[in-house]
Amino acid sequence: MDPIHQTPSVKMFVDYEKSFGNYLVDADGNKLLDVYMQISSLPLGYNHPDLVKCASDPRLITSIVSRPALGSFPRHDFPDMIQKALISVAPKGLKSVQTMLCGTSANENALKTAFIHYQTKKRGGPPRPQDLESCMMQYPPGTPNLSVLSFNGAFHGRSLAMLSVTRSKPVHKVDIPALDWPIANYPRYMYPLEKHEAHNGKQDEQCLAEVRRLIETRKKEQRDVAALIVEPIQSEGGDHYASPSFFKGLQKICKEHGVVFIVDEVQTGGGASGSFWAHDHWNLESPPDMVTFSKKMITGGYYFKEELRVNEPYRIYNTWMGDPSKLVVLEKALEVIKRDGLVENTKKVGENLLAGLRKLEDLYPQQISNSRGVGTFCAFDLRDAKTRDQLIDACLSEGLHIGGCGDASIRFRPALVFTQKHLDVTLDLLAKACKKLF
Amino acid sequence: MDPIHQTPSVKMFVDYEKSFGNYLVDADGNKLLDVYMQISSLPLGYNHPDLVKCASDPRLITSIVSRPALGSFPRHDFPDMIQKALISVAPKGLKSVQTMLCGTSANENALKTAFIHYQTKKRGGPPRPQDLESCMMQYPPGTPNLSVLSFNGAFHGRSLAMLSVTRSKPVHKVDIPALDWPIANYPRYMYPLEKHEAHNGKQDEQCLAEVRRLIETRKKEQRDVAALIVEPIQSEGGDHYASPSFFKGLQKICKEHGVVFIVDEVQTGGGASGSFWAHDHWNLESPPDMVTFSKKMITGGYYFKEELRVNEPYRIYNTWMGDPSKLVVLEKALEVIKRDGLVENTKKVGENLLAGLRKLEDLYPQQISNSRGVGTFCAFDLRDAKTRDQLIDACLSEGLHIGGCGDASIRFRPALVFTQKHLDVTLDLLAKACKKLF
Repeated sequence: MDPIHQTPSVKMFVDYEKSFGNYLVDADGNKLLDVYMQISSLPLGYNHPDLVKCASDPRLITSIVSRPALGSFPRHDFPDMIQKALISVAPKGLKSVQTMLCGTSANENALKTAFIHYQTKKRGGPPRPQDLESCMMQYPPGTPNLSVLSFNGAFHGRSLAMLSVTRSKPVHKVDIPALDWPIANYPRYMYPLEKHEAHNGKQDEQCLAEVRRLIETRKKEQRDVAALIVEPIQSEGGDHYASPSFFKGLQKICKEHGVVFIVDEVQTGGGASGSFWAHDHWNLESPPDMVTFSKKMITGGYYFKEELRVNEPYRIYNTWMGDPSKLVVLEKALEVIKRDGLVENTKKVGENLLAGLRKLEDLYPQQISNSRGVGTFCAFDLRDAKTRDQLIDACLSEGLHIGGCGDASIRFRPALVFTQKHLDVTLDLLAKACKKLF
Repeated sequence: MDPIHQTPSVKMFVDYEKSFGNYLVDADGNKLLDVYMQISSLPLGYNHPDLVKCASDPRLITSIVSRPALGSFPRHDFPDMIQKALISVAPKGLKSVQTMLCGTSANENALKTAFIHYQTKKRGGPPRPQDLESCMMQYPPGTPNLSVLSFNGAFHGRSLAMLSVTRSKPVHKVDIPALDWPIANYPRYMYPLEKHEAHNGKQDEQCLAEVRRLIETRKKEQRDVAALIVEPIQSEGGDHYASPSFFKGLQKICKEHGVVFIVDEVQTGGGASGSFWAHDHWNLESPPDMVTFSKKMITGGYYFKEELRVNEPYRIYNTWMGDPSKLVVLEKALEVIKRDGLVENTKKVGENLLAGLRKLEDLYPQQISNSRGVGTFCAFDLRDAKTRDQLIDACLSEGLHIGGCGDASIRFRPALVFTQKHLDVTLDLLAKACKKLF
């Protein structure tokens, strides 16, 4: 038996040394245009020359071979590293950040912060002796019966607790015990948006009413909703969009009920939406309470409002609390993104990508529908899962590596270095694959 | 406000470029002998010359700037990397391993694997349509009411679910909602062990009876214990030991009841106990079902018995599933550990460390008690928390950086390159600190 993998999900062995830019080279030497990019996690594609230069940055190798326990013994230049990397791209209105290792641990610790905040506010101060004592037996008041509200179709990670707020696919959740937390419906729009304003507006209205009802019911049942976590675009769940007014409504409800409003930008953050953060598109009057990130951000973590800072030591803590070597690479990646105007690039190229998908939709109206997207963060639906999987395979045969999501969708997650030239090749290969298949 | 840290737990900024071997240099230029080593996580101390050579390994930089989604698109040489690094030190009888990012995600995924295994065995096969359907609403049979048994004093991580099996300190658990899972007592021995056989044997007996009772009760209540997770030495909880016969008893009970037996070697694994794995000391007839690791192993992950392999794709999965750059460093670290006989070194130096602590205990019988340890994984107790904290501070003033654990214990967690020479300095500085304080 293969000693490596717990699960048979390996699809392709890759020659990462030979892969470059937007092109991946598999272990057999096949060169593929990659618009999936390690599940949306490489900001600058493969072996970007500026990132490779990090190898000679003394901070990189020291951080790797003498890895700090960041929560207690950070590098002397860690504040500077945080400033240059993470704070330089902080969402508007947020000035504090905590690193973690991945998207799941970012979400886990954002929720822990929300619980601590909720209880601290309720008590009017830090834990009392009776809280410290009862929590060791997991009784109230030290162990409160709080919950987190999330959405049908959501994906927030695969730890046990994150699976309780994740509702995208049975394969994630089956056989795993869960926390009894409430679930609301996320809008299900018809596309193009401008042609379905009535339907989509009604979706917003119904979903917001449900959120309000769930929060009020849980409060009456004394199992308060302490936090709401939501993706700007439900990605694993099938690239479902919701409108700025929906999110403004969510934020308003959260404010009214003292619920911490957490925006999960693990997949959407980092520039692919045509803005650095997907929630920039909402034009909120005040920032979300917390914004979590990972993937294209190279490190996991979350930004938070100052009022959410936990004042007692060792409550938000673990051995590594991130990895400073990732910040060295992120700092350089952000330099390149700013220098080369890559966010503006995704905006421009993304418009042409969406236009190209709509043309394809016109060609194959029985097969393709619901082309949608912001920036290069685009998707379309096939008529069923089988057809979707066949199209992914057909694209691969043509030399295009693309990913699926939801029940029957295809998603584009190219790197930020994906230009018009690569788009032309992409649309050409996609057209060829469709022609063969349909 | 400090834009970096969620919590005020930062104790010391460190100049990692200037730190070397067993010596840490803080941001003010003070050189400290470090027997805490980033909470037990650096196997070879600071900037080991052989590890620094990894900087020129092309696999390292490629893995960093073109990081794979390992579960689907591993490097072409990933099987080789796993073999050379992790399989070369696999616990006796275990041949399969899964990498993860840290100790918490290792434990999370070990438990998920146990739940999947338990349900698969119960059904006699993979999930059925009714399981896949019901799990999306979190109802049985798809979402089973299974639990995990752990121990008072345990530490298994700080994600929400891991906090439910962690019972070492209130500061970890307070204000965080929890899963209702059973807790048994872990033996509380008197030291030195050879003088308290009757007391300690009785502890084993009582604790094993409790474990058996809890498993049987939960079964009757139809909320079966699917897994038991236990540390060979409860580390965060205060360096509590349990005997080989206790662990043999646990394994026997688990086998009888079909409970997955998971040994958490996150802090104990990697050579400091005088054996590569602390559970080697038990001489089990068959291996544990799973062994989790992180810290000194540079990458997180878990070894597992072949029968626990999950056969369906994407069930044990996430975007990164570890980090191959860490395997490059681990491979080199293991080469050094084997070449320089560092596990044998910790055994030998550890014996002298323990002897030195016992001498100190004889000098200050009112202050110091319960010197204990295997290898360099040693500890002793102070009469109360305040005295413990004062001694840690006094050591720091003398130039010795040491850590606490439990209520009133001090723990030694030096790197594997800690030799007799460093031990002599350690005991000298510790004696000076005691003399000043007591």
